[in-house]
Amino acid sequence: MRSLDDLLKQLDFILEIDRLKSVYRQTFILSGERTENDAEHSWHLAVMAFLLAEHADEEVDVPRVMKMVLIHDIVEIDAGDTFAYDSAGHRDKELREREAAERIFGLLPEGQRAQMLQIWREFEERETPEARFAAALDCLQPVLLNYHSRRAGRTWTDHDVQYRQVVERIERIRDGSGDLWEFARQLVRDAVQKGYLPEPDGS
Amino acid sequence: MRSLDDLLKQLDFILEIDRLKSVYRQTFILSGERTENDAEHSWHLAVMAFLLAEHADEEVDVPRVMKMVLIHDIVEIDAGDTFAYDSAGHRDKELREREAAERIFGLLPEGQRAQMLQIWREFEERETPEARFAAALDCLQPVLLNYHSRRAGRTWTDHDVQYRQVVERIERIRDGSGDLWEFARQLVRDAVQKGYLPEPDGS
Repeated sequence: MRSLDDLLKQLDFILEIDRLKSVYRQTFILSGERTENDAEHSWHLAVMAFLLAEHADEEVDVPRVMKMVLIHDIVEIDAGDTFAYDSAGHRDKELREREAAERIFGLLPEGQRAQMLQIWREFEERETPEARFAAALDCLQPVLLNYHSRRAGRTWTDHDVQYRQVVERIERIRDGSGDLWEFARQLVRDAVQKGYLPEPDGS
Repeated sequence: MRSLDDLLKQLDFILEIDRLKSVYRQTFILSGERTENDAEHSWHLAVMAFLLAEHADEEVDVPRVMKMVLIHDIVEIDAGDTFAYDSAGHRDKELREREAAERIFGLLPEGQRAQMLQIWREFEERETPEARFAAALDCLQPVLLNYHSRRAGRTWTDHDVQYRQVVERIERIRDGSGDLWEFARQLVRDAVQKGYLPEPDGS
């Protein structure tokens, strides 16, 4: 056996992250029966990562994007989910999430701990093509669900989210993929037409 | 834009597979509050794939294993989850799942449809090192959860699963990883000690 000690640490981490299945987001799953949790969301993004990679503006290391989206929300086990449009919650988000990353990835053997922390930080900083594309997917997926869910628009209307906030938010998609951004922009316009989002101010 | 038509097909598939979030398995999540769904399970396996790859007996293409576990259960959207110890359900499982694969992966653009079908079949056949390792993870994860859950052993006791059935089942782990099999074998022995599984016959 390679190292029983390492295996036990890896399994500790694997058991710890089971808690991500109980961290709920604001987005409804398509059936509308309940909101999505972070584990399901991360799975969805990982499938999107390899299916949509051709739409990334820059060439990306697809497996790295996959790892990134699979682990990007693990910090929310301690820090909780901060809604994209919650500006108060975003003020101390960075500190809470950094501490969570240290604790949770700290369960892993040394080498993997460093590797996972690096991938997580890379995602947060959005400075590499991989991180920009991962962020684009992370931003597109809830827009897709919110538009197509049986409770279409609910995430926006329940939280009084305005058109300009959504338009501003999806700029993040543009940084990773012009294709996906064009698509999302059209979807947001249609959402206004369908009454899922209030009309833009002054229109 | 590369091809709007392809993008629309990809997004159709991505929306369709949202339904995996509502296909529930027999295994409880660690908190014990409910059973796990296929989307969460697939996410868990994908993280395990890259963290535990060093324990595979043969060298594996890790990104391929990740893709494999991310999509391996998608057929259950149509075919439903067949419990590992349900031998009646296993009789027509193959046909039901093959039809489901044709329909669901058929939503994708041609090239990706073929690629996904191939990865799914490879997983089912368990003839490559990647498929054997993926199957080992798919078998280990529910044993881990069932042992460590607040409802420890419930999956076994609720379904009257016997010690020899579990021992037989985890042979699948041995085909992919001697390390993980040794570990699982010990866990199953401990499960008997703790009363999560009935004593082996004749002991």
